[in-house]
Amino acid sequence: MTAPLKVAIAGLGTVGGGLLKLLTAQADLLEARCGRRIVPVAVSARSRGKDRGADLSGIDWYDDAATLATAPGVDVFVELIGGSDGIAKRAVEAAIKAGRHVVTANKALLAHHGTQLGTMAEERGVTLAFEAAVAGGIPAIKGLREGLAGNRIREVHGILNGTCNYILTEMRTTRREFAAVLADAQRLGYAEADPSFDIDGVDAAHKLAILTAVAFGCRVDFASVHVEGIRHVSALDIEYAQELGYRIRLLGIARRTERGIEQRVHPCMVPIGSPIGATDGVFNAVVADGDFVDKVVLVGRGAGAGPTASAVAADLIDIARDRSTPTFSVPVSKLEPLVPSPISMRRGRYYVRLMVVDRPGVIADVAAALRDQQVSMEAFLQRARSPGEAVPVVLTTHETDEAAMQRALAVIGALDAVVEPPRMIRIEDF
Amino acid sequence: MTAPLKVAIAGLGTVGGGLLKLLTAQADLLEARCGRRIVPVAVSARSRGKDRGADLSGIDWYDDAATLATAPGVDVFVELIGGSDGIAKRAVEAAIKAGRHVVTANKALLAHHGTQLGTMAEERGVTLAFEAAVAGGIPAIKGLREGLAGNRIREVHGILNGTCNYILTEMRTTRREFAAVLADAQRLGYAEADPSFDIDGVDAAHKLAILTAVAFGCRVDFASVHVEGIRHVSALDIEYAQELGYRIRLLGIARRTERGIEQRVHPCMVPIGSPIGATDGVFNAVVADGDFVDKVVLVGRGAGAGPTASAVAADLIDIARDRSTPTFSVPVSKLEPLVPSPISMRRGRYYVRLMVVDRPGVIADVAAALRDQQVSMEAFLQRARSPGEAVPVVLTTHETDEAAMQRALAVIGALDAVVEPPRMIRIEDF
Repeated sequence: MTAPLKVAIAGLGTVGGGLLKLLTAQADLLEARCGRRIVPVAVSARSRGKDRGADLSGIDWYDDAATLATAPGVDVFVELIGGSDGIAKRAVEAAIKAGRHVVTANKALLAHHGTQLGTMAEERGVTLAFEAAVAGGIPAIKGLREGLAGNRIREVHGILNGTCNYILTEMRTTRREFAAVLADAQRLGYAEADPSFDIDGVDAAHKLAILTAVAFGCRVDFASVHVEGIRHVSALDIEYAQELGYRIRLLGIARRTERGIEQRVHPCMVPIGSPIGATDGVFNAVVADGDFVDKVVLVGRGAGAGPTASAVAADLIDIARDRSTPTFSVPVSKLEPLVPSPISMRRGRYYVRLMVVDRPGVIADVAAALRDQQVSMEAFLQRARSPGEAVPVVLTTHETDEAAMQRALAVIGALDAVVEPPRMIRIEDF
Repeated sequence: MTAPLKVAIAGLGTVGGGLLKLLTAQADLLEARCGRRIVPVAVSARSRGKDRGADLSGIDWYDDAATLATAPGVDVFVELIGGSDGIAKRAVEAAIKAGRHVVTANKALLAHHGTQLGTMAEERGVTLAFEAAVAGGIPAIKGLREGLAGNRIREVHGILNGTCNYILTEMRTTRREFAAVLADAQRLGYAEADPSFDIDGVDAAHKLAILTAVAFGCRVDFASVHVEGIRHVSALDIEYAQELGYRIRLLGIARRTERGIEQRVHPCMVPIGSPIGATDGVFNAVVADGDFVDKVVLVGRGAGAGPTASAVAADLIDIARDRSTPTFSVPVSKLEPLVPSPISMRRGRYYVRLMVVDRPGVIADVAAALRDQQVSMEAFLQRARSPGEAVPVVLTTHETDEAAMQRALAVIGALDAVVEPPRMIRIEDF
């Protein structure tokens, strides 16, 4: 019998509590699968007194995560604190320097400092694992980095934030507006009191930056992710999407193009029958497109105590079995710099909704603005009639350049008869 | 630089050709990911003269796979011959005995001899890898055995045969009968000249037996899989399924119950909006349900040169990086014997279609037969009227025991007014 793998856990919130529960409940199973036991030996958290529903007897307590990170006799430091800087970063750096393997669920930390931390880990010869940082319980990192390792990845995209997907699903099924559904989601605990990280797309962008690095073997480059959230999606757009055969999803998309790598997070219209279109509610989905395997779709729970603990456990099992993989698919020295292809270079189809005063000649002006930018209209819908008042007008385009579309929208938005800023949603026909 | 991993490939059909192409096209990528090159050094196939579109210069040729399996200087033997016995089995055994790692795409071999071969490999200290044997390019084995290794798996099910899914999808979209669609599929190369392995469910059952062993850490027990194919599914049933909100899929289902492990392959009705219901055409899907992670769904191409080569490459990369995992999740000595729970113990809902002579009293007789077995009807449809002639009558039941359902069907089938054997399809509300 090999010696047990000794684990220190920093952060005993939902995920930390779930992990302790898993390590206890599955102790024998893990031993059978690893050939050794995985034992939590030390923990740290903000308040010692709190009841976490987990038995902490026999586990050393530390008040400070950075001290825990270098505690003697520890093999792996599990960081479940969160935040891109501060104590989480200090503790992870300390752990790596002290020769501890690190498992983290912290997407902000990796999005901002992933390349640097990966370099440190590689120099020190330890593992930096982060299955739980992307798409919760879905084995997306393992799937990409090992399962599809024989492929050159062309694209990876997915639903990376369950809160946004829950809100968009609720808006559709209850026909309510964003603000009302968000308030409900906050009450139910599906959205944070300060929801901006989720609904403004930042959380999804963190995860996308990590996925991009793993998929393409390049440095993590969060700064070049184009980010839009879901605040501007209206119940009306969701209704029109349905009519046109689409669902609205907040997607993260990383695509290798001739010009470089596109990284973008924004609301998309996707076909209802596609795997992404069929993924409702709090679920996450990740789609990878490889040159030999074609598309592989992974769907599951993107958050929560159980699924996240499952992902952390998978990393611990890899470490316990001495299975190692370069942090971002290839060694740091071989990581390519990420050459970003900006959103203005996107080619694709577009949905546009305008609120226009219902009077003769308005549509001719809109059509002329599109024509002047070589944007070709595919469909056009004006359902309601209300002479002299504002009514919604919806159009979709054939494939066109984002830059041309933006120029056309600037002209259209400036028309007298267009009474609200035009709403544009990109169509992705996966 | 570590020494290259030297690979011998037995069988140069679609998959073998695809693998050679992948190893050539991705040589540098694989080296970056593995820290060493993966080099095909020897091959065997039936006829030496055939042009395979792959450059075989510099690769040793063997006429006999079993000789290739023990060729000097080879690290890994890749078996792409197929068949549960004969040369494939002899060659794999020879390779293991000679201390070679083995990678195989051969589901029949593993379904029949998996435990024995896994035992041999473990005793000899070599890897027996088989990602390509189940669900083609989908990293299902890695996902289950590593990605979800922190979970006790409660159930695994999926679309494991692309040919059947293609036929069922075509039957629905073209409203044609099984025989006509099968003939087309054979002409297009989606079905074999002798299609029985696919359409009678045997191929799916092979894959299910392997998945079961991996998911539950038990011995492979192909003999206890209940197998039904899709020959009896009619266009009428597919139409009724649609009307009731279902799709008909050939599924493999392995479920842990209090009585033991259910293993069954048969046509099922599944909700249209479920991931399985949304997986049309040649695609495969695997759903694993773990106690911490809940359900994880994996969808992708289940066959073809590229996807299968991708899966074989993933196994080779694991070997090149010295990443090892027990063949069926836990060491052979810890594999549990599989205690089968027979199909008669299934509890669930049922769809039944009868062809009955349209005259008063028939439905009362059918209803009485169900009542006598405590089977509770949920819905009942008799659309067409044609007094004195045979018309379809469709009913669905609430949850009931398979044994009771079968007894009721025997009584119903024997009624004078029921002019064809009743068609029963199990409903699975995933």
